[in-house]
Amino acid sequence: MTGTLTVAGLGPGNETLITPEVTVAIAEATDIVGYIPYVARIPAREGLTLHPTDNRVELERATHALEMAASGRKVVVVSSGDPGVFAMASAVFEAMDRAPHLAHVETRILPGITAMLAAAARTGAPLGHDFCAINLSDNLKPWSVVEKRIRLAAQADFAMAFYNPRSVSRPHQFGQALDILRQECGRERLIIFARAVTTPQEKIKVTTLADARAEMADMRTVVLVGNSLTRCIGPYVYTPRRAE
Amino acid sequence: MTGTLTVAGLGPGNETLITPEVTVAIAEATDIVGYIPYVARIPAREGLTLHPTDNRVELERATHALEMAASGRKVVVVSSGDPGVFAMASAVFEAMDRAPHLAHVETRILPGITAMLAAAARTGAPLGHDFCAINLSDNLKPWSVVEKRIRLAAQADFAMAFYNPRSVSRPHQFGQALDILRQECGRERLIIFARAVTTPQEKIKVTTLADARAEMADMRTVVLVGNSLTRCIGPYVYTPRRAE
Repeated sequence: MTGTLTVAGLGPGNETLITPEVTVAIAEATDIVGYIPYVARIPAREGLTLHPTDNRVELERATHALEMAASGRKVVVVSSGDPGVFAMASAVFEAMDRAPHLAHVETRILPGITAMLAAAARTGAPLGHDFCAINLSDNLKPWSVVEKRIRLAAQADFAMAFYNPRSVSRPHQFGQALDILRQECGRERLIIFARAVTTPQEKIKVTTLADARAEMADMRTVVLVGNSLTRCIGPYVYTPRRAE
Repeated sequence: MTGTLTVAGLGPGNETLITPEVTVAIAEATDIVGYIPYVARIPAREGLTLHPTDNRVELERATHALEMAASGRKVVVVSSGDPGVFAMASAVFEAMDRAPHLAHVETRILPGITAMLAAAARTGAPLGHDFCAINLSDNLKPWSVVEKRIRLAAQADFAMAFYNPRSVSRPHQFGQALDILRQECGRERLIIFARAVTTPQEKIKVTTLADARAEMADMRTVVLVGNSLTRCIGPYVYTPRRAE
């Protein structure tokens, strides 16, 4: 029996945003691997083993998934959002890189709706022109790299999406990021705090950099910052398709 | 009767990548508006009027959709990919901005799988760390802005996705973009040409900037460029989660 490894995106939370491709992969799986709250979204059934694991063990989780697939299981690693955007797809290939005897495992990545695009859709079209996505966590990169990327992105006049803006273990850095943004973009630039988008806990706040406070973000928030032309129209925020 | 306007993403092409949310919206629509090949993906049924229109008439199309919704119709504007990424969502809000008597129309945006994330999934995880998305068309912005953004993105060491890299009407600019990338990123940097991803015409080529040629892209191609750490493992391309 030939096993397979599928890395599947569950989208931002609402079940109506899971693609049929992912639904089929989950229905055919023998094993589901992932971070506890994402595995909790998969209904139990006979023949399916759930393997929930804690946060910050991505490489071990990926290696375990590859080993099970190598032994003949049909393994699905679940990510929230899109597995290719600050999620499990890279971790799986890193694990393969470190364990060449697992590199033969047939692996496929199934995309999903990533948080920034779900948040953008809920507020209008704030990422409607050139934009970038930056992970504000410094677990795997120096904070100086984050600061440099924010400055260059602002100088390029990209709209921006920030993932993992703030957590209990690093409460101060997001305030520094906001300071850099105020220096580079001015105080009137629009900023959106989108928490738990498409779930019952969804909370969206549109404000300006002048009024933005670090405490408006937590680990379930994605933060969007407009470019120099981003504007409000009624309840919507949008970035025009042109640039000057 | 209160009309509504929904802007829905059909994803990159394969039907299994359309979210259930979008499928329901299409099933409830009275009118479908969009670029000819996207409207062609919607099956005809009684009670549904299809309004296919040509490329480059986005504002007129958006205004027409808003007017129909204001008159009580349930209108769905279809985009390929995600409507918020270089697609119809911004055009709808621009149209609203120009026609304030239509700004009361109840409007919602339904996200979809955008081309760069479908292409990334098909090749591994090339956008697995901080990245940017740039539209290479200069229809609505000076080419100098495009060049500046490419240089700053390269200096930030973003992975990059390029939409609309090349068309019959502007065959030469993509070659200039490749020249800038070679200057800023070196000749060994990985580049992916992903054409018509997830459709029967799908064609994916992984190469280096040294061997990249402008003719490898056309208007159905999305181009991905790795960051300085992006690597190949077997048939896969991935960008590690760390930075240095």
